[in-house]
Amino acid sequence: MTYGGIEAGGTKWVCAVGEGPVDLRLLATLPTTTPEETIALAADFFSRNGKLDALGVGSFGPIDVRRGLITNTPKAGWANTDVVGMLSSALGVRVAFDTDVNAAALGEHRWGAAAGLDTFCYVTVGTGIGGGAMVNGRLLHGLVHPEFGHMRIPHDRDRDPFDGVCPFHGDCFEGLASGEAMRARWGTPAEMNDDAAAWALEAEYLALGLVNVISALSPQRIILGGGVAKQPMLLPLLRARIGNLLAEYIAAPDIVAPALGDRAGVLGAIELARQASR
Amino acid sequence: MTYGGIEAGGTKWVCAVGEGPVDLRLLATLPTTTPEETIALAADFFSRNGKLDALGVGSFGPIDVRRGLITNTPKAGWANTDVVGMLSSALGVRVAFDTDVNAAALGEHRWGAAAGLDTFCYVTVGTGIGGGAMVNGRLLHGLVHPEFGHMRIPHDRDRDPFDGVCPFHGDCFEGLASGEAMRARWGTPAEMNDDAAAWALEAEYLALGLVNVISALSPQRIILGGGVAKQPMLLPLLRARIGNLLAEYIAAPDIVAPALGDRAGVLGAIELARQASR
Repeated sequence: MTYGGIEAGGTKWVCAVGEGPVDLRLLATLPTTTPEETIALAADFFSRNGKLDALGVGSFGPIDVRRGLITNTPKAGWANTDVVGMLSSALGVRVAFDTDVNAAALGEHRWGAAAGLDTFCYVTVGTGIGGGAMVNGRLLHGLVHPEFGHMRIPHDRDRDPFDGVCPFHGDCFEGLASGEAMRARWGTPAEMNDDAAAWALEAEYLALGLVNVISALSPQRIILGGGVAKQPMLLPLLRARIGNLLAEYIAAPDIVAPALGDRAGVLGAIELARQASR
Repeated sequence: MTYGGIEAGGTKWVCAVGEGPVDLRLLATLPTTTPEETIALAADFFSRNGKLDALGVGSFGPIDVRRGLITNTPKAGWANTDVVGMLSSALGVRVAFDTDVNAAALGEHRWGAAAGLDTFCYVTVGTGIGGGAMVNGRLLHGLVHPEFGHMRIPHDRDRDPFDGVCPFHGDCFEGLASGEAMRARWGTPAEMNDDAAAWALEAEYLALGLVNVISALSPQRIILGGGVAKQPMLLPLLRARIGNLLAEYIAAPDIVAPALGDRAGVLGAIELARQASR
C-alpha cells in the first residue's frame, strides 16, 4: 500500500509518502500561499510519485473535521477552504483529515513517545500553541477539537506588562507564550533568545497552561513539540514549575520531547491515511 | 437485577437501590463521619434491603480508580481509604468505583441531559468544584482523573483581593469560585447570597474556568450541577460571558442544568453497577 501524508501548516506544507518512519520519502516542502496554488502543487507532487491508496492530512485550524474544511482561520485567503474536497478531486483518492496536532499525537502513538498509552496529549509551542489528545485510545474531537492555546491563564502584569499577541483574546495562553509572543515581547526570535529571564517567564506560562491541561484531561504523558520547545533549558524549568504548581495534590505526568521530532505530524498524517484505507 | 448506588460525598453519602430513575428507592442519606462508621452504616442499609447484584460508588476524591481507594484527600481520616475493599467484604458483592462527577456524567448520559452525546462534561460547583467527562462514549480517567477545580485562571486582585480558599493552591479555580470561596469572601453562604455583584464575579470566574474546559476538551455540552449553580441569575450571565471570552474563535457548547438534578450522582452510581455486572 502507498500512503500519502501532508502536514498542512500555516507557513509550509510538508508532503511525504510511505508506510512509516523507516520508508518515509519526503516529496516536498511547499510554502503556504493561496489554497488553490498550495493544493495544486501538493497534488502535482503526489501524482508524479505513483498512485496513492489513501492520503492523510493534519491541518492548521480551526477545522471542521467531519466536513473536511479549514474554517475561520485568520490566515488571509484560507477561511472556509474545502481541503478534503479539493485534494480528493485532484488526486481521485480517499482523504482523511484531522488537526495537525491530533495527527502528531497519532504518529507518536503509533511509532513514538506515546506507544502503549491510551490517554495523552501532544502540545506544540511554535508560532502558535496547539494541542491534540487521545483518550482511551481514540483521538479527541468533541464539538470542534481542542484549542489548548486559547485557555486563559494568570497574567501578572507587574512582572510582564506585555499585552499578548492573540488577535482574538490578547493575553490567552498562546497570546502570552507562543513563539510569536516571545518574538514580540523580547524583539528576538525565540530560537535566537538565550536570555535566562525570558526562558524563566516562558516556563512559567507553559507550566500554567500545562497544569490546566493536566487538570482537564489527566494525560498519562505530555509530548511537547514545536520550535520553542527545543530550547534546552526549558524542559527542566517546566517540570520543576509544574511540580510546584500541582503542590502534590495530583501526580504530574511525564513531559517529554516527541520521539519522531519534526516528523510527528507528517507521519501521523500517513497513519490517518492507513486507518482510513482499512 | 438489583443494583445499589452510593454517591459518596465528603459531607454525606446517598445510598439507593433500583435500575434507574423510575424505580429508584433512596435508602439512606448518611453523614460522612469516619470511614469505618460510614461504610458500616451504608453496608447495613443495603443488606437490610435484599441481595444486590452489584454496587456502584461515585466518590469524592482524589481517588485511585483501579485500586478502589480514596487517596490524598485533606478530609480528616479518609486518606488512603480502601472503599471498594471494605464495601465488597461487608456485602459480598462486586463494587464498581469512579469519581462522583464521572458517575454524574454517566447518569446524565444514560437518562438525562447528555443522552445521545459522546463527548461532554459534567461540572459541579458546590462546596468545591469538580468535573467529569465522557470522550467518544467512554469516561475519561487518564493518569488519575480530571480535577477541573485545580486549574489556574486569571485573578484580578484589584477587582477581587480575596486570596482564595484552596488548601493546596490558594486562588485556583476552586479556590476562587467554589461555594466555600463565596462563603468566605462575602460572609454569607452562596445559597443565601442575592448580591448581584457577587454573582457577576462568580460568573466571571466560572466563565474563565469553563473556557479552559472548552479549550482542552471541546465538549458537545457542559452540564453544570451543584448547589452554587442553582442560583437563577447565574446561567444567563455565564453563557454571555463565555461567548465574550471565546470571541467567536470557536463555537461555545450549550451549558445546561442536570436533567436528573441532585440525583445524577447516585443514578450514575447505579449505572456503574449495571455496567460492572454485564
